[in-house]
Amino acid sequence: MSSQLSTHADTPAFEQRMRAALELAARRPAVDPNPRVGCVLERDGAVVGRGWHAGAGTPHAEVSALADAGELARGATAYVSLEPCAHTGRTGPCIDALTEAGVRRVVFGQHDPNPVAQGGGEVLRSRGLEVVGAVLADEARALNEHWTFAVSHERPWVRWKFAATLDGRSAAADGSSQWISNALSRVDVHEQRRLAGAIIAGTGTALADDPHLTARSSTGGVAGPQPLRVVVGDRELPADARVLDDAAATIQVHTHDPAVVLKELHARGVRSALLEGGPTLGAAFCAAGLVDEVIAYVAPLMLGAGRSAVGPLGVGTLSDATAWTLYDVTRFGDDVRLIYRRK
Amino acid sequence: MSSQLSTHADTPAFEQRMRAALELAARRPAVDPNPRVGCVLERDGAVVGRGWHAGAGTPHAEVSALADAGELARGATAYVSLEPCAHTGRTGPCIDALTEAGVRRVVFGQHDPNPVAQGGGEVLRSRGLEVVGAVLADEARALNEHWTFAVSHERPWVRWKFAATLDGRSAAADGSSQWISNALSRVDVHEQRRLAGAIIAGTGTALADDPHLTARSSTGGVAGPQPLRVVVGDRELPADARVLDDAAATIQVHTHDPAVVLKELHARGVRSALLEGGPTLGAAFCAAGLVDEVIAYVAPLMLGAGRSAVGPLGVGTLSDATAWTLYDVTRFGDDVRLIYRRK
Ligand SMILES: NC(=O)c1ccc[n+]([C@@H]2O[C@H](COP(=O)([O-])OP(=O)(O)OC[C@H]3O[C@@H](n4cnc5c(N)ncnc54)[C@H](OP(=O)(O)O)[C@@H]3O)[C@@H](O)[C@H]2O)c1
Ligand SMILES: NC(=O)c1ccc[n+]([C@@H]2O[C@H](COP(=O)([O-])OP(=O)(O)OC[C@H]3O[C@@H](n4cnc5c(N)ncnc54)[C@H](OP(=O)(O)O)[C@@H]3O)[C@@H](O)[C@H]2O)c1
Repeated sequence: MSSQLSTHADTPAFEQRMRAALELAARRPAVDPNPRVGCVLERDGAVVGRGWHAGAGTPHAEVSALADAGELARGATAYVSLEPCAHTGRTGPCIDALTEAGVRRVVFGQHDPNPVAQGGGEVLRSRGLEVVGAVLADEARALNEHWTFAVSHERPWVRWKFAATLDGRSAAADGSSQWISNALSRVDVHEQRRLAGAIIAGTGTALADDPHLTARSSTGGVAGPQPLRVVVGDRELPADARVLDDAAATIQVHTHDPAVVLKELHARGVRSALLEGGPTLGAAFCAAGLVDEVIAYVAPLMLGAGRSAVGPLGVGTLSDATAWTLYDVTRFGDDVRLIYRRK
Repeated sequence: MSSQLSTHADTPAFEQRMRAALELAARRPAVDPNPRVGCVLERDGAVVGRGWHAGAGTPHAEVSALADAGELARGATAYVSLEPCAHTGRTGPCIDALTEAGVRRVVFGQHDPNPVAQGGGEVLRSRGLEVVGAVLADEARALNEHWTFAVSHERPWVRWKFAATLDGRSAAADGSSQWISNALSRVDVHEQRRLAGAIIAGTGTALADDPHLTARSSTGGVAGPQPLRVVVGDRELPADARVLDDAAATIQVHTHDPAVVLKELHARGVRSALLEGGPTLGAAFCAAGLVDEVIAYVAPLMLGAGRSAVGPLGVGTLSDATAWTLYDVTRFGDDVRLIYRRK
């Protein structure tokens, strides 16, 4: 195990530098597939290098900070928000970069939960570096909540988003459903999409609504890097389906098993998936215990008839229903967004 | 009309005393059938009398304040949160009491909206008193929101309360429904009952659940003066139905017309009614445009099947649905209470 942090006399100083590393990490939004990581290099009490990870295919935070510090990295202490990885992915392992640059001590935030990358701290210690951790571990973990879940559970964190009336309906008796939620809620949906590595919908929704499933800005333009679009079910989509356009990559998974969908997404590096329904697919994920978060936009309407926003769950009696925790309540005008998490 | 308040040099002083009268009025909770009213008597810059109305059958605020002041009322200014009434109800008209006591000036808050009691200010003026109003009219009106609505619309303000799952259901597939909402929400329901002059339920609810429909304290005891219990529908209740016990008065209204129910309640002095369903009766009031406020307790559950908390509303297409304003959002643990009002 790592050093006993609680007995270390330098804890306050460590925390101050770690906070700076966390702030660097947070410069990037939490998007798939890689974690947000920040690194600060300190020598003789002064910061000599800073770096953060800007996303898949770009240098890791430690490597950026070492490049920033140049020769001044020799003998420095590295503060890294995530335990340096011992794993060669698209870039070499960070522990080698730190060793080669002559860093003397490494203070890290979150332990690496990734089974294929963890243990970097031990390797560094065996090479003679002083290693201290975990410093501000909770704050560091919070930066990468979905990623941490995904690498330890080997499947993406799944958020099921739906819009419903106060009486739980997603369409009126005649099928009309545009728009149940208001413009502010719809802007927020695009914000939620932006934070996801994949957007999942059933063939029912894809065929009925012909949705784009892209993250768009409030002016309607496709904005920034796009999540993978995932259509689940056997029916074929017409070649001119919007979800098959060039705006983003799309896959169709020919299965009715939610676990198969998540396995496929995990293999593709998706850490966070936004499940956009419809009612049948959403309920199937839910009944399989594969929904981690529910995001419901409740509109100020009652319909008294029309299709339910939540399909069959296989719940026969009240005590069999899954109990959720109310995680967040946010108003969007007359809509309210309710976020629930598993208990 | 009353004096031009905006040009009166004494406005700040008037408002200060009126605030004291409003505070006295608020000593009583807002319960039926009478408004909350407070009165402060001032002579030579000093407060010489205070009074507030403690509920039906007790003296009006002005009369209490006059009794408090005794002979000192002669030549005083009376600050009353509601325009003194010109109407002889269970007690004589307040304007006579003020005149006989020798009050020289009356400053009032809200104009009396009651068609049978209004015009008190004019009468006082014709008797030679100085009359100023409306001072802090909005604050004064807010003290008696439901009462003001009721006396001007000649029917009670109707709040429809229901508990539902996130997917709008009031029972699971097998009919189980106890408890959908949590203990904190249920305490709040008793708070809502306490503020009502009547609690309304359909025969369906009365027969299925055998509810008490009383306002109880958190220890289960019937607490304070009880609202009238109102059962709507033709079916007879068994003689041992809880709603027929001695804890409160009960009437059954043999009709399916919500307007008939409200007419009966208005005649009985009910200013604020809490409609507790069930789904059929609630929806019937709603479809008739006779629900002014919806209080929904949303539980952190999804059922995917089971009966709807909201019965048929006669809405065929989305654009025909009534749009509501989200008036209040309050968490009760993992439940959330959403209050809506008519747009
Ligand atoms: N309120 C909202 O937020 C919201 C969101 C999305 C959609 N909607 C509405 O929902 C409607 C579509 O509803 P839907 O329920 O048909 O759509 P859906 O859930 O998107 O798709 C259902 C289809 O998914 C496939 N599928 C995959 N796994 C399944 C499983 N485990 N069990 C059953 N089917 C599975 C089946 O397709 P195959 O037969 O092809 O295999 C099935 O027909 C549209 O009208 C849309 O507007 C509402
Ligand atoms: N989730 C909640 O907050 C909540 C609250 C209350 C009740 N509930 C549940 O609701 C269930 C009872 O539902 P319900 O819908 O039968 O109860 P309901 O709405 O209380 O009663 C329906 C009855 O009301 C009478 N009625 C009066 N006006 C009517 C109108 N305009 N249209 C139709 N009927 C009218 C009819 O009785 P007659 O035939 O006698 O004339 C009708 O059968 C119970 O299981 C109860 O647990 C849930």
